[in-house]
Amino acid sequence: MTLEEYCRAERQRQLEWLIDYVRIPSISSSPEHVDEVRRCGQWTVNEMERIGLEHGQLIETGGHPVAYADWLHATDAPTVVVYGHYDVQPVDPLELWESPPFDPSIRDGELYARGSVDDKGQVLMHWAAIEALMRTAGRLPVNLKFLVEGEEEIGSPNLDPFIEQHLDLLKADVAVISDTAMYGHGMPSLCYGLRGLAYFQIDVQGPNSDLHSGSFGGAVANPANALAEILARLKDASGRVCIPGFYDDVRPLSDEERRELAKLPFDDAAYRAAIDVDALTGEAGFSPLERLWARPTLDVNGIWGGYQGSGAKTIIPAEAHAKVSCRLVPNQEPAKTGHLFSDYVKSIAPPGVRVRVQELHGGRPSITPIDHLATLAAKRALERAFEKDVVFMREGGSIPVVATFDSLLHVPTVLLGVGLPDEHAHAPNERLNLDNFYRGILAAAYLWQELAQVRL
Amino acid sequence: MTLEEYCRAERQRQLEWLIDYVRIPSISSSPEHVDEVRRCGQWTVNEMERIGLEHGQLIETGGHPVAYADWLHATDAPTVVVYGHYDVQPVDPLELWESPPFDPSIRDGELYARGSVDDKGQVLMHWAAIEALMRTAGRLPVNLKFLVEGEEEIGSPNLDPFIEQHLDLLKADVAVISDTAMYGHGMPSLCYGLRGLAYFQIDVQGPNSDLHSGSFGGAVANPANALAEILARLKDASGRVCIPGFYDDVRPLSDEERRELAKLPFDDAAYRAAIDVDALTGEAGFSPLERLWARPTLDVNGIWGGYQGSGAKTIIPAEAHAKVSCRLVPNQEPAKTGHLFSDYVKSIAPPGVRVRVQELHGGRPSITPIDHLATLAAKRALERAFEKDVVFMREGGSIPVVATFDSLLHVPTVLLGVGLPDEHAHAPNERLNLDNFYRGILAAAYLWQELAQVRL
Repeated sequence: MTLEEYCRAERQRQLEWLIDYVRIPSISSSPEHVDEVRRCGQWTVNEMERIGLEHGQLIETGGHPVAYADWLHATDAPTVVVYGHYDVQPVDPLELWESPPFDPSIRDGELYARGSVDDKGQVLMHWAAIEALMRTAGRLPVNLKFLVEGEEEIGSPNLDPFIEQHLDLLKADVAVISDTAMYGHGMPSLCYGLRGLAYFQIDVQGPNSDLHSGSFGGAVANPANALAEILARLKDASGRVCIPGFYDDVRPLSDEERRELAKLPFDDAAYRAAIDVDALTGEAGFSPLERLWARPTLDVNGIWGGYQGSGAKTIIPAEAHAKVSCRLVPNQEPAKTGHLFSDYVKSIAPPGVRVRVQELHGGRPSITPIDHLATLAAKRALERAFEKDVVFMREGGSIPVVATFDSLLHVPTVLLGVGLPDEHAHAPNERLNLDNFYRGILAAAYLWQELAQVRL
Repeated sequence: MTLEEYCRAERQRQLEWLIDYVRIPSISSSPEHVDEVRRCGQWTVNEMERIGLEHGQLIETGGHPVAYADWLHATDAPTVVVYGHYDVQPVDPLELWESPPFDPSIRDGELYARGSVDDKGQVLMHWAAIEALMRTAGRLPVNLKFLVEGEEEIGSPNLDPFIEQHLDLLKADVAVISDTAMYGHGMPSLCYGLRGLAYFQIDVQGPNSDLHSGSFGGAVANPANALAEILARLKDASGRVCIPGFYDDVRPLSDEERRELAKLPFDDAAYRAAIDVDALTGEAGFSPLERLWARPTLDVNGIWGGYQGSGAKTIIPAEAHAKVSCRLVPNQEPAKTGHLFSDYVKSIAPPGVRVRVQELHGGRPSITPIDHLATLAAKRALERAFEKDVVFMREGGSIPVVATFDSLLHVPTVLLGVGLPDEHAHAPNERLNLDNFYRGILAAAYLWQELAQVRL
């Protein structure tokens, strides 16, 4: 029996297997569900052992445990660390669910359940692929290490320490994460780049207390006006960030990347309508997708100072504040951006106020280029399984574990996701397209075959 | 017996009279004190009748009543409406008072009590002057109408309607208010100009909800950035307001005014130290006092939008807001300034956001020029009483009743105040310098004499 024949024959059982998995209400943010989360972690270990992975263990952390298992018998083949998570988002507001979140329901070729696409369906897709390879070939073409955590939906507070403490256990040549969405229906996608983040707070201090704007207005620098001046000088009218050196380390988009991104449909009018704005804006000279994925940004995330109530209060506020963050792209470094930002803000501070910059948070951008051997292997795997050309995309946000894999394990990451952008991850009526699930199982199996052929 | 001899002889009684007045806890903001406020209003009426004023009456309003009395027997002489208030500020925090606020205490030539300087002392100073004139001359040199309200400390919510309903009763040639402070110790002062106000709220609307700054950053206009851009373009680096036409109606300072204001001591270092700022700022080409009193301003009074908590939240806020106000100077009009402001803000709104301007509040500036006959009469009166040259000053804030007298009664206002800037009006340990009180009685008497000599 071929791999493909086995997979086709086992579809009903694979679906029932997933239904059992999503029945477990492993809501990591809920103290009442702590036992269910642990039960789900143990279930994850048990299933991995059942399909032939070894060293299955539930490893304690400061919070919910990590489920681990591996298979390390592919001599001279690469080792892949596969990351996923067995915890799920809360289900509120429950009344908006058309079927109960933990009582899975199949309608129109979609499995409706919390965790179906995020991320249990995409974790189990790998298990089904492994099971199929084991049953048809008796072995796996690569070495695999599964790291399935239980705290992704609460920000993975214990993941970095866990990885740091288990560097030998997790040593690998490449990481694979299946926790992302395709660009659209029928468009198998490879997300090859993520943006990073540098997050700041600007504090502007003026007089030692709020002052009467009549008695003092005209002689005293106003911290809120000063803050506005500073913020306005961070970007120019063409949307470019004015901080000297800000773009120095930005990896330019190659012609091939721009061609690939230009292939993706982007409905400007629909995009605008969805968020109810009259015009898209941003850095001149780049398409919206290039701006969203491959160019750094500078956004005010919050601003406050002085009187915010109804009516009129006539004060010069003592202080004003803003949260400002930059999305970073390869190869910008948060720490370097922080220095540039801080120096520039202080250099443009108007007289009469004191300005402080706090660096609140940083995360590195990442990229596994479209001509990287692992990316090309994943492309072939997806194209074999989906029988369509793969599109290349990036993601404007961050997936912190990718930066961690880069910095601690020194491995590139392949994001092989088969979700869809409208499958309501984190929302009521989360669902998973079953055709993508079945094709994803084949894609996962093909990925191990393809990776076995390359030297990473 | 001369006026001066009478006043000197009666000092102890005048002081005891004031002590009786400030014993009444007429806190207008306090519901528990509503009877005391009314008792104080009736006391005010009674005293005015006792000294020989006529038509004494406590006139009901929507809130605390107005105390009224007049004397109208000076044929061919001007009629003066005298405004004051018999209500006082609250006394919290009580523990900071060195003697009880309503148990008057005299220390070092100062009467300590709530209401001593603001405003009972300055109201009673007029009564003592009238009494002295009545006893020594048997009549008054001008016609007087006393309007003593009971709601000044809560913003005079019923005063404008009261005046509107009593235009004939209050008809006059000039208004006199004694509720301000001198520029400094030993510096009899005439405040001849007040600034007005135009107060706005700018609302910037971006997308229909907060957006993930990673997923959307780079393609969507950020309302907080847009607001900062707008605010930064309202003033230039030299401190001038950039709104076209903003300065068109500003009455320039005359050379004589600039000379008068330049005579006033201004300790830049002490001013900066008191509010803890490194530098004073403002419109180039004007001294601090000119900027504070005679030039219009533009200040952000409050600003808010997006995330204000601790740490980092990565959003593009859906909206951002600012309260912005301009102090206006003669002859700027709040309504015209409102149009200019609103048109300009809309004209500079960046693409991708919707901007709305709300006009929240307006008040007209006022001036009774230093060469006005009433001002000159007051100058002579003060100089006779204080035996010193008068200094001319203005005030950066507003006294709304002055604008009301201008617009409803069509009279100029003379601000004959004998308080001192450090007498703690509105604060614990409010006090009144008794030398200024006694000289103020003479100044009030002289003012009627001087006003009788001029044709207004």
